[in-house]
Amino acid sequence: MSAVPPLLTIDRAAFRADIDALAAITDPARPWTRRSFSPLFLEGRAYLARRFAEAGLDVRIDPAGNLIGRWAAEDPAAPVLMTGSHSDTVPDGGRFDGIAGVAASLAAVRAMRAAGYRPRHTVEVVDFLAEEPSEWGLSCIGSRGMAGALGPRELAMAGPGGEPLAAAIDRIGGSVADLGSAKRSDVAAFVELHIEQGPVLETEGIPIGIVSGIVGIGRVRVRFAGVAGHAGTVPMAGRRDAGLAVARLLLAVRDGARAHPGNGHFTATVGVLRLEPGGANVLPGAAEAIVDIRAEIDGAMTRFIEALSAMAAAAAEAEGCRVEAFEVVSRTTAAVCDPGLGADIAEAARRLGLGTRPLASGAGHDAAFLARVAPSAMLFAPSRVGKSHCPEEWTDPDALADAADVLLGTLMLRDAAFAPPA
Amino acid sequence: MSAVPPLLTIDRAAFRADIDALAAITDPARPWTRRSFSPLFLEGRAYLARRFAEAGLDVRIDPAGNLIGRWAAEDPAAPVLMTGSHSDTVPDGGRFDGIAGVAASLAAVRAMRAAGYRPRHTVEVVDFLAEEPSEWGLSCIGSRGMAGALGPRELAMAGPGGEPLAAAIDRIGGSVADLGSAKRSDVAAFVELHIEQGPVLETEGIPIGIVSGIVGIGRVRVRFAGVAGHAGTVPMAGRRDAGLAVARLLLAVRDGARAHPGNGHFTATVGVLRLEPGGANVLPGAAEAIVDIRAEIDGAMTRFIEALSAMAAAAAEAEGCRVEAFEVVSRTTAAVCDPGLGADIAEAARRLGLGTRPLASGAGHDAAFLARVAPSAMLFAPSRVGKSHCPEEWTDPDALADAADVLLGTLMLRDAAFAPPA
Repeated sequence: MSAVPPLLTIDRAAFRADIDALAAITDPARPWTRRSFSPLFLEGRAYLARRFAEAGLDVRIDPAGNLIGRWAAEDPAAPVLMTGSHSDTVPDGGRFDGIAGVAASLAAVRAMRAAGYRPRHTVEVVDFLAEEPSEWGLSCIGSRGMAGALGPRELAMAGPGGEPLAAAIDRIGGSVADLGSAKRSDVAAFVELHIEQGPVLETEGIPIGIVSGIVGIGRVRVRFAGVAGHAGTVPMAGRRDAGLAVARLLLAVRDGARAHPGNGHFTATVGVLRLEPGGANVLPGAAEAIVDIRAEIDGAMTRFIEALSAMAAAAAEAEGCRVEAFEVVSRTTAAVCDPGLGADIAEAARRLGLGTRPLASGAGHDAAFLARVAPSAMLFAPSRVGKSHCPEEWTDPDALADAADVLLGTLMLRDAAFAPPA
Repeated sequence: MSAVPPLLTIDRAAFRADIDALAAITDPARPWTRRSFSPLFLEGRAYLARRFAEAGLDVRIDPAGNLIGRWAAEDPAAPVLMTGSHSDTVPDGGRFDGIAGVAASLAAVRAMRAAGYRPRHTVEVVDFLAEEPSEWGLSCIGSRGMAGALGPRELAMAGPGGEPLAAAIDRIGGSVADLGSAKRSDVAAFVELHIEQGPVLETEGIPIGIVSGIVGIGRVRVRFAGVAGHAGTVPMAGRRDAGLAVARLLLAVRDGARAHPGNGHFTATVGVLRLEPGGANVLPGAAEAIVDIRAEIDGAMTRFIEALSAMAAAAAEAEGCRVEAFEVVSRTTAAVCDPGLGADIAEAARRLGLGTRPLASGAGHDAAFLARVAPSAMLFAPSRVGKSHCPEEWTDPDALADAADVLLGTLMLRDAAFAPPA
């Protein structure tokens, strides 16, 4: 049995100062924008590296381009307790998505050091490279590297000016030639704090979300072919209007997602839709939609994609059209968060008097890749009206500091439960 | 009572040669394209002017830019029997839309002259300027001019390079300074042959359509506002998805148009639809559609626009959205074709052993503007599978020549019914 660790809390002012400092490092014309691989991104990392060093961490960039601050245990063979998130943003993004987790990890380390705590694990604070969809068409680049999931196909992807991803990683301080050594097998646990990016915690008035799993994401392209014609000369009877088929599909997708028998978090959304040829006076001869599917349970995704195929066929038939394409464009598997780490988060919150609820993550995160190589978990802080990836993204500073305290407590509970290597 | 005129028919080979000659005057990269005001358009008109002159017509361009071939009656005070259509095309258009009517009118004049016929009316064959939506954002430019419907607002519209429409009309031989004299009050009757551009005649196996009226065209922009969000983090329950509101509207528009109690030809179509912001991973926060409405009876259009407003409100309410805009962007009134001229078309067809049916025109035509200043009528030839405004546009040459014979017979019947000015 492990001893109960002392109950520490972070320095809230210093934590907030870090978040504000990063918010100030933005494209001034479109706050808050700090795109991965950009000069502003490197400026943000220079700030973080300085703060990592001030907190007594050894700073390095690993071959996959992750910025890491390391606090070595006395035992050089001790496994790593890793925490962190990312400092890059989407264009016109918010002040919290990503950086909140990096700043909270740093604040937790500062609190432990200030209290004279000596961890049994080596502790690493990580700013993962390029978690957001980057200009190279790939997301979670650094955490993919840690999971051994950056292959030749990914490294050849071209960004602005045709720069291959491999060159971009080297440019910001990584070393693609040594990429194999970025893959981790020494991590005992990974914990990431993030804002929820959804409305559940705020709506229910619960301060801490314990992430049960991170959804798999599927994208299906559905294309209907009808018969184009003049909007005025083709009578209403006998039309084969592909726009009406896609309209039926949208409603069927929503109804199907609501009724979906799969357990766990599940969403299906159409955010991209095109009518062709797209003239006001032309009956659409074709219509295409991208269906975004998110499932906490992979089997639910599989069943829904089967159901979607039937929905598309039914929508086409009802409008005298045909399904010209039904293509699963991409699909990732869901990641299950570690239940033991989840219990630690719950206990850390309980000690602070903070309520929790389990919650799936409908967004992708670095933790989904870390889960491939280590027990991983996430905790969420509430997002105001669920908004994220927009300038209005907001989390109350005290609520965010509460979540950082829970992260600190979780790390200490997990460190107290240290199991030396067999 | 007027004497029954002799039964003449056109020279089919010469008629077809004219259509083929005009088809060859096309942008070679995208057949068949002969845009109004372009060098190719002027090349086509030079061919027509030569053929008009060869047929013994006096050729001029009126102040509104219409190419006119005139066959003067002995009596200089005789009213005008006018026939014609247009030689411009849409981009990637067909070989018949427009030019079939000009060539048929010319063929009819040639047949009358070859038979030694002496008309009591002055006969005019017209190639109306820019019937198709032009690069100046306006259609039926020449026929508007004949109807006195080209005002300062239209003349100021800017085309390629910012050229005002007035300058473009002057450039191709018109005279905007004298535009008032382009307005006609001397036309006893106008008859236009055109391809149907719809599937009705072919489907029913009827060779000649007698146009009962030309629809009024309304365009309504409907915009829904919902609440944008992350496709993965906003639960299915509680979404305000503007894409679903617009999907409901599409289906309601179709159902409403089918059930619409107005008499006559009626269509409602959505060919333009946009989801915003338009990302695969973003729940649409706004959605916009343009509804194209065509009604043979203006009251039916009015009632449908009222019903559409209720449909939009219901679609918004069902999805927790709101109607952010409901704007009648444009609306034209319907034109009724002259029943007496329609009876002449029917009689001319009967004499040739050709069946007819009344048919509304769901597309706009020059005849709609001529109807403002003279009794006007149209006859339609069948379109293969109803296609038009595309390279596949096709009408069987013999069927088209049959229709030209009916045009000829109609002009002769009308001429035989000559009523001298009071």
